[in-house]
Amino acid sequence: MKTLSENACFGGTQGVYSHASATCNCEMTFAVFLPEEAKDGPVPVLWYLSGLTCTHENAMTKAGAQAWAAEHGIALVFPDTSPRGEDVADDEAYDLGKGAGFYVNATQDPWAPHFQMRDYIAEELPSLLAGNFAVDITRQAITGHSMGGHGALVLAMTLPGRFLSVSAFAPIANPSKSDWGRKQLGAYVGSNEKDWGKNDATVLMQEKGFDGPILIDQGAQDQFLDLLRPEALAAAIATRRQQAIFRMQPGYDHSYFFVSTFMEDHIAFHADALYAG
Amino acid sequence: MKTLSENACFGGTQGVYSHASATCNCEMTFAVFLPEEAKDGPVPVLWYLSGLTCTHENAMTKAGAQAWAAEHGIALVFPDTSPRGEDVADDEAYDLGKGAGFYVNATQDPWAPHFQMRDYIAEELPSLLAGNFAVDITRQAITGHSMGGHGALVLAMTLPGRFLSVSAFAPIANPSKSDWGRKQLGAYVGSNEKDWGKNDATVLMQEKGFDGPILIDQGAQDQFLDLLRPEALAAAIATRRQQAIFRMQPGYDHSYFFVSTFMEDHIAFHADALYAG
Repeated sequence: MKTLSENACFGGTQGVYSHASATCNCEMTFAVFLPEEAKDGPVPVLWYLSGLTCTHENAMTKAGAQAWAAEHGIALVFPDTSPRGEDVADDEAYDLGKGAGFYVNATQDPWAPHFQMRDYIAEELPSLLAGNFAVDITRQAITGHSMGGHGALVLAMTLPGRFLSVSAFAPIANPSKSDWGRKQLGAYVGSNEKDWGKNDATVLMQEKGFDGPILIDQGAQDQFLDLLRPEALAAAIATRRQQAIFRMQPGYDHSYFFVSTFMEDHIAFHADALYAG
Repeated sequence: MKTLSENACFGGTQGVYSHASATCNCEMTFAVFLPEEAKDGPVPVLWYLSGLTCTHENAMTKAGAQAWAAEHGIALVFPDTSPRGEDVADDEAYDLGKGAGFYVNATQDPWAPHFQMRDYIAEELPSLLAGNFAVDITRQAITGHSMGGHGALVLAMTLPGRFLSVSAFAPIANPSKSDWGRKQLGAYVGSNEKDWGKNDATVLMQEKGFDGPILIDQGAQDQFLDLLRPEALAAAIATRRQQAIFRMQPGYDHSYFFVSTFMEDHIAFHADALYAG
């Protein structure tokens, strides 16, 4: 693991690191915020999965999360959104290939050799974190924005017991019924739509739900509402009687101005779950 | 005035606007955050002047200021750092020309036709704001980072009665004795060093000071300490018995991770002055 940068931040440290990923078969970059409390021992950890076109950097610089993570003594992890490098397949579209890994394991060419983002986030990166940072891997929560909200919800529901809470900002809530999903799931996991459900938060909510609290914020003026399909997930939550708070926020769009506005609430929500034990 | 974007943000609106500047003789872009309270009437305003290479955008997205401005009901203004456009003179160096206006009025060629940033910030933009936004122009404060900290301190001391308080993050504190200043002041206002003092916070502090409170934060691990010369300004403040808080912050560097960490304190500091009347 290489340290690319470390900056003092809200009493703790905001670092950027890279490592040779065996899962994605390329060099991967990620960012970690450690609060001051991590100097004294392991702290709980909140994952933040970013959206289309993002790297580890966008939320690290624009989401305003460190202020609240420092207040609650929680570490933050900002992974990249796809494998990177000259050897890695890509597509001209912004929403397929690099910057658009959708947090799935690709089974199809040309994506399969590197696009193993689910296993990377679910297995390899947690091991790396546990071995190199003062994080308590028994107390994890997860959040994300847009494509990252999709990733957070899917990972939380398909890794029972892993995350104590899950939240999302304007998640891609029903990708198998959206142009933000059908193309990508087809490309990455193949054209058999039966394989898509395990990567679709609405389908997973219908089939299994989540054993813990959920918080979702969605801007009512989001320019991508048709692609996000929050109504499908909201209906599935209500039908299942899932413990959840779904907030439609008047006036807000899809930007980081929206994300940063509600970040304090999300981190307080996760802190409640992470410290409840 | 053109509206380039408006996003809901912390209950208010983060907007980006442009206008034909008569002072800079080019199209200028700036950003304004209006808190929710501005819907009911004029609110006090805090100027944030950015550092070298920045536009209106850097602090708008990375400083985390809107959260605290919203809490205190204060508007934020983020001007650009220089004139822009194909007709505007530039230099290959990052610290001269575009992105490096130093908030001075240039008297020398090729800079004089456009680089009138002091008058732009001191006269033209305030008039534009007063005419187009719900801001109370009788209650203004000013802050900035690095080159913008220099600009904030110089403007505050040379416009008596204009600003109720001034603060700075890692300001260029003594430009007439620094490589961040000598080159630029020489280029913009000429080689006669006697003309430089009115653009130097340390000299101004020695000669006149500020009729109000000052807050300065400086990272002790700032990679540019030799260029910033905080010791010169600190000495001048102490010698004058100027009302001021100067904080040397262990561990912090020159980045926005430093700025965002202490933004809450700076906005609370200005709120005290803006609401004292």
